[in-house]
Amino acid sequence: MSTVGIKETMNSAKSGWMAGGGPEGDILISSRVRVARNLKGYAYPHLLDQEKAEQVIHAVQLALDSQAIKSRLDELETIRMSELSPVERQILVEKHLISPNLLEEYSKKAVVLQDDEVISIMINEEDHLRIQCLLPGLQLEKAWALVNQIDDGLENTLDYAFSEKFGYLTACPTNTGTGMRASVMLHLPGLVLVDQVGAVLTTVSKLGFTVRGLYGEGTEALGNLFQLSNQVTMGHSEQEIINSLNSVTGQILAQEREARKALMQQRKDQLEDKMGRSYGILKYAHMISSEEAMRRISDVRMGVDLQLIDGLTAEQLTELMVMTRPAYLAKEGNNKLDPLRRDILRAEIIRNKLNKGG
Amino acid sequence: MSTVGIKETMNSAKSGWMAGGGPEGDILISSRVRVARNLKGYAYPHLLDQEKAEQVIHAVQLALDSQAIKSRLDELETIRMSELSPVERQILVEKHLISPNLLEEYSKKAVVLQDDEVISIMINEEDHLRIQCLLPGLQLEKAWALVNQIDDGLENTLDYAFSEKFGYLTACPTNTGTGMRASVMLHLPGLVLVDQVGAVLTTVSKLGFTVRGLYGEGTEALGNLFQLSNQVTMGHSEQEIINSLNSVTGQILAQEREARKALMQQRKDQLEDKMGRSYGILKYAHMISSEEAMRRISDVRMGVDLQLIDGLTAEQLTELMVMTRPAYLAKEGNNKLDPLRRDILRAEIIRNKLNKGG
Repeated sequence: MSTVGIKETMNSAKSGWMAGGGPEGDILISSRVRVARNLKGYAYPHLLDQEKAEQVIHAVQLALDSQAIKSRLDELETIRMSELSPVERQILVEKHLISPNLLEEYSKKAVVLQDDEVISIMINEEDHLRIQCLLPGLQLEKAWALVNQIDDGLENTLDYAFSEKFGYLTACPTNTGTGMRASVMLHLPGLVLVDQVGAVLTTVSKLGFTVRGLYGEGTEALGNLFQLSNQVTMGHSEQEIINSLNSVTGQILAQEREARKALMQQRKDQLEDKMGRSYGILKYAHMISSEEAMRRISDVRMGVDLQLIDGLTAEQLTELMVMTRPAYLAKEGNNKLDPLRRDILRAEIIRNKLNKGG
Repeated sequence: MSTVGIKETMNSAKSGWMAGGGPEGDILISSRVRVARNLKGYAYPHLLDQEKAEQVIHAVQLALDSQAIKSRLDELETIRMSELSPVERQILVEKHLISPNLLEEYSKKAVVLQDDEVISIMINEEDHLRIQCLLPGLQLEKAWALVNQIDDGLENTLDYAFSEKFGYLTACPTNTGTGMRASVMLHLPGLVLVDQVGAVLTTVSKLGFTVRGLYGEGTEALGNLFQLSNQVTMGHSEQEIINSLNSVTGQILAQEREARKALMQQRKDQLEDKMGRSYGILKYAHMISSEEAMRRISDVRMGVDLQLIDGLTAEQLTELMVMTRPAYLAKEGNNKLDPLRRDILRAEIIRNKLNKGG
């Protein structure tokens, strides 16, 4: 990734994972796989001093420069968190390229990004390495294959902390074993509207999966977006984890489609009205909160999926969801925005985007 | 008025009074003057049997055919209420061309309409004759002049019930004297928003004027529309009544303009947002109640007045207010609409009208 690359990352709300068109891309926004890895001989990141942290970053960079990786990936750029402004760091979070953890004690941390933002490698997050692949639609297999290639390549050079008994060792025991977390981001307005989302997600939890809102733990399911991921990392192979997540995702997709079908049969007028109103409000409002924007964009997205609204793509709407997040707006607004001005700017960005096509 | 004329009246939501562009036409929708007259030798309408009622209608028709009237007015058509369907009768009410009174015992009643619907003469309403003139904007003087001409013309032929002491005699003593009621229809969203409308209207009441909502007594001020009329008909000349209504109207206009100015200075963003949202909802909703439609149309009208919304005229919005009333919709929907279908049709009519221009 060139300097142009990172500038592009900051200026555009687009990321590879938003390209849309992936399998089941109407409901399944994106698939993500990440593995946690640690280097033997170093304390876990939260115990590292600056010097040792630098050594870890340096070691990873050397490994990335090795032929084994270069043959697989090019256009990689390592960015130290300290090189970025607070707003730029937050944008990476909002684009799902780094976790909020990377914002704390950031002088010790870095991220490696590929030009298309499909691959990101966090250095000195909770673990020394978090290798992530984020793809549009239901592509867990492909995401895992990409992560696995990079992991194998790095392992040629780096000496990972590994136990025959436990598998990959990690700072938090919930990651020990495969060190893998696989997740899908689902847009489930149908299940929310028929009031079944709670039941579905409770079932899913019992099957060993975690459900949370779009922007990580503790956040509400803004815009009817739910992230579903495996809880268990030990005792199952990577492939087993992928398979079982694929399977439960398939069931939720079917239930969401059922819910949408029932809504279209029984409450089409109400649905069309709800979505039309949200579309009209997004096109003409002059101030809008982040929460309302997410909710209305969700409505319009469902309207596009159900062909009740035309002239828009799901991709544009995913992009809007990122463009209307606080940090992206702070950047657009030159960082000097009170909440009112932010709501005004957010409405302006949405209007411009939606009225462009006429 | 030809048969084409009355058909046109039913099919179009437009009326002469909606042409807009009259003086102060942004805030003052329309001016109305009517006089109540009764024929000597006949009981008041509520006591008339069918035969006597017919005689009154006949006498008025003869008078209208006289040269004195013909030289002043052409294209007049007398329509017996019994010739119209219930929906058609209701449409005349919604267009403000007749009063709801004319719907009761309608076999005894008739209306005389001019092609442009500026003049309407109700026969056997509360009084034998109610001669009305309805013009766009602030044109009380002109409305009175027109009513006066017709009244004079009719008086050449008809023998009015008149007392030297009391003036024109009427069924209800509140109309006795001049028999005149002058009114203006005001759109006062600014005073409503700054929460001053109550105080203003209380003051106005104390000055001897009555304030009520757009669709007559007992109705709410739907869409921030208020009708202001004189209470007293005796003891003042017609000109004095017009003058004092003109004067109090001028004061309210000034206060509404002040309120709008203050809102634009202090809450422009909120105002723009409120109006934009209403515009977006009208353009894209798929079901809307009569009340919500009136409220949103009022918002958009204020937006157009304040040049916050373009591409629309006040006339179009006044027309929409009539087009979205229940009877007009019943006619459009072939009369077989449950409330849900009516809300759906209303939204469709509004969408078609607002999205036509692009």
